[in-house]
Amino acid sequence: MSLLTHKHLLGLADYSEADITTILDTAERMKEILERPVPKVPTLRGVTVVNLFMESSTRTRVSFELAEKRLSADTLNFAVSSSSLSKGETLLDTALNIEAMKIDVVVMRHKSPGSPHFLARHLDSIIINAGDGCHEHPTQALLDMMTLRQKFGALKGLRVCLVGDISHSRVALSNIIGLKTMGAQVTVCGPATLIPRGIERLGVQVTHSLDEAIQRCDALNVLRLQLERQEAGLFPSLREYHQYFGLTRRRLEKAPAPLTILHPGPMNRGVEITSDVADSEHSVILQQVTNGVAVRMAVLYLLAGAKMPSTEMKV
Amino acid sequence: MSLLTHKHLLGLADYSEADITTILDTAERMKEILERPVPKVPTLRGVTVVNLFMESSTRTRVSFELAEKRLSADTLNFAVSSSSLSKGETLLDTALNIEAMKIDVVVMRHKSPGSPHFLARHLDSIIINAGDGCHEHPTQALLDMMTLRQKFGALKGLRVCLVGDISHSRVALSNIIGLKTMGAQVTVCGPATLIPRGIERLGVQVTHSLDEAIQRCDALNVLRLQLERQEAGLFPSLREYHQYFGLTRRRLEKAPAPLTILHPGPMNRGVEITSDVADSEHSVILQQVTNGVAVRMAVLYLLAGAKMPSTEMKV
Amino acid sequence: MSLLTHKHLLGLADYSEADITTILDTAERMKEILERPVPKVPTLRGVTVVNLFMESSTRTRVSFELAEKRLSADTLNFAVSSSSLSKGETLLDTALNIEAMKIDVVVMRHKSPGSPHFLARHLDSIIINAGDGCHEHPTQALLDMMTLRQKFGALKGLRVCLVGDISHSRVALSNIIGLKTMGAQVTVCGPATLIPRGIERLGVQVTHSLDEAIQRCDALNVLRLQLERQEAGLFPSLREYHQYFGLTRRRLEKAPAPLTILHPGPMNRGVEITSDVADSEHSVILQQVTNGVAVRMAVLYLLAGAKMPSTEMKV
Repeated sequence: MSLLTHKHLLGLADYSEADITTILDTAERMKEILERPVPKVPTLRGVTVVNLFMESSTRTRVSFELAEKRLSADTLNFAVSSSSLSKGETLLDTALNIEAMKIDVVVMRHKSPGSPHFLARHLDSIIINAGDGCHEHPTQALLDMMTLRQKFGALKGLRVCLVGDISHSRVALSNIIGLKTMGAQVTVCGPATLIPRGIERLGVQVTHSLDEAIQRCDALNVLRLQLERQEAGLFPSLREYHQYFGLTRRRLEKAPAPLTILHPGPMNRGVEITSDVADSEHSVILQQVTNGVAVRMAVLYLLAGAKMPSTEMKV
Repeated sequence: MSLLTHKHLLGLADYSEADITTILDTAERMKEILERPVPKVPTLRGVTVVNLFMESSTRTRVSFELAEKRLSADTLNFAVSSSSLSKGETLLDTALNIEAMKIDVVVMRHKSPGSPHFLARHLDSIIINAGDGCHEHPTQALLDMMTLRQKFGALKGLRVCLVGDISHSRVALSNIIGLKTMGAQVTVCGPATLIPRGIERLGVQVTHSLDEAIQRCDALNVLRLQLERQEAGLFPSLREYHQYFGLTRRRLEKAPAPLTILHPGPMNRGVEITSDVADSEHSVILQQVTNGVAVRMAVLYLLAGAKMPSTEMKV
Repeated sequence: MSLLTHKHLLGLADYSEADITTILDTAERMKEILERPVPKVPTLRGVTVVNLFMESSTRTRVSFELAEKRLSADTLNFAVSSSSLSKGETLLDTALNIEAMKIDVVVMRHKSPGSPHFLARHLDSIIINAGDGCHEHPTQALLDMMTLRQKFGALKGLRVCLVGDISHSRVALSNIIGLKTMGAQVTVCGPATLIPRGIERLGVQVTHSLDEAIQRCDALNVLRLQLERQEAGLFPSLREYHQYFGLTRRRLEKAPAPLTILHPGPMNRGVEITSDVADSEHSVILQQVTNGVAVRMAVLYLLAGAKMPSTEMKV
């Protein structure tokens, strides 16, 4: 049994404030481990984790793999190209095969929304969603919240604005769900073509003016612009996108107080964010990356650690 | 020196009944290790294994890699695309280079029949064949035999039918050789275009009627249909193949007693096998996958374990 | 602090005779470790090394990965295709992200000359250059020097000739710098189109006659011919290249005494070197490969080992 009230991390949709707080608190202890001279604990020795990445990824895969190794788990990587999927096998058959090899945890990224939920219904393994299409990317939202909590002490009442392509962003959806659960106020900002209609029902405010958002937020989470959206006609040009929704120092200077800047990476410098903002003292972008490893260690420990003979973590 | 009478596992062609029995018995002990809370033993600590896969593969590579990690070997992966072979280096030079790095075991898959035998003549390393073109795939046959032995208690006298593309299948050839050595009765079943002439000389019976095969077998090993064979004109259409050689519940119901169903994977559901058969209680397809890790652990231990200071496995 | 007078290994340009001697001496001790029954030491336990290979490579990546594992470091691989670079992220952002994950050492190969120097200015991590375009490949030169020192006892006064495409070879440049530092006499030999003008300023002699070079050298380091240079019109044909600069037994027989033959691999047999030479008793090509692992262990230990609680290596 998991140390959370859940067996899997499929998304933040069904995670309570208590669950998220447990993860963030555990992640802080994991961060301490990462700062040791030998940043490694035997907590998950003998646990086998498969990283089943059916969409290409650098930082998320590496961050998970590092988290697994810090906890002494055994790891196996499945990349999209080397997979049997190209031979026409179903996702379920691939997953059942992996499980039959006595795998404990499947960390998966897949282009189809809901694919981790589908596998969770059919496998005994613990499933961790590392991004399912435009749906959720829960560990990203957890690391964003960890970073905000470090900066502001608490999430309750914090005013966070997500800027960019809200429609296609699993980072945005998981952040909205998680931040709302934790009592934050969430605004989304972007062109009308990139914000889903009716998103207010999730309890967020909508604005199409970045200048307005800057006036009423404590932190801005600037989303990566997927350049391929331009071909789909969702915005006229990179230049125009930058002019209206690119975060610049000049724009930020109009804020009543300095805003904290987040970005999930990889950044398009000069498009959704300028270098002077990305590299400024108020940017916490690299802290996000560090926290990413700690959050993933926490999730792995909390979900898989109880499988171990000794469930107590020596921290 | 190996704990078998062989240094390498190039194929089952020269493995005796005693050798195969040693592997299967050892694999059962390995399976017990896999069922422990921490399924890992230090048996091959310090042994370095290279997985030299010059043909793409998911399950076989992962199964070997997992077996290596369960035994605490150090593993290195060579995939086809990242290899110097594309720079025009000979296979022998690549292999000699690998060996010069003080590698103990080379697990190799290569499209050319006989390539592991070629390397075995030139290298000091232990070579394990993970599939050489249309020739042999010995660990697949060993895991198939392990699964059958678990089900039936013994292989002697067991009636096994291999169904499908016998001509191009290394799984079929290794199964025929291994099963005959163990005293089983082997039938092959498929369209005339996919069964080599004169295969009777291997001591097998041939039938072109799946219904007939079903009447006189205890177990059916359904081979994956390589869809590219259709383009080569070896069968008219998937639909027609399915009609004559697809294993369906309806066909199976005519058997005098329930047949055990094996498939080496990945399955083309609806082509060579229907889902109701693949997922039925008589299917041992997922047990095959589990046994695959155990068999590969056994082979690695038996061939490489004696290089260790202590050759005794603590089980 | 490093056990060398340098934090990084960006090239041999600023490495002194004492530094290089320290590395070669340490590499000899590492070679002894490699010859043990269990060739593994806990020296770098808890140190995390990223292999950031943005150009494809087999032997160098595998050699580094093996060296890292022999020293019990944790390793992560970044291949070019799976990297965010294809998403338009800058090299610096990728590297900063890697470092934010608490990486200790970055082993990098990149097509741009100077890229490791660039990262060293911006990262706190230890950078090891595994080849930067046509610039340097310091560990290759170190392993070449280790091999020569084993054969001749010392490098001082040794007469070494580098044969082939000197203009585009990072192996040549690092060898020239390292060998000159160690007091060797260096000659370069190749077609005028493949030798940079003014290279004499590096203290080397130039010849366009391989027969002449053979008369006055103790060792020949035959460079791989990049076949794509032909398309660039730098030599007329492989056949003509072979006729003038291909190393054959017949040519070597005219040497006053047997020459030692090196090649960094992968070899184009029949182009820059014939098989009878490559496989002869005077070829040390496979010793180079073995020494490569030892040299990389030495560099990793000397640069990263002092980060460890106990800096003393148990040898």
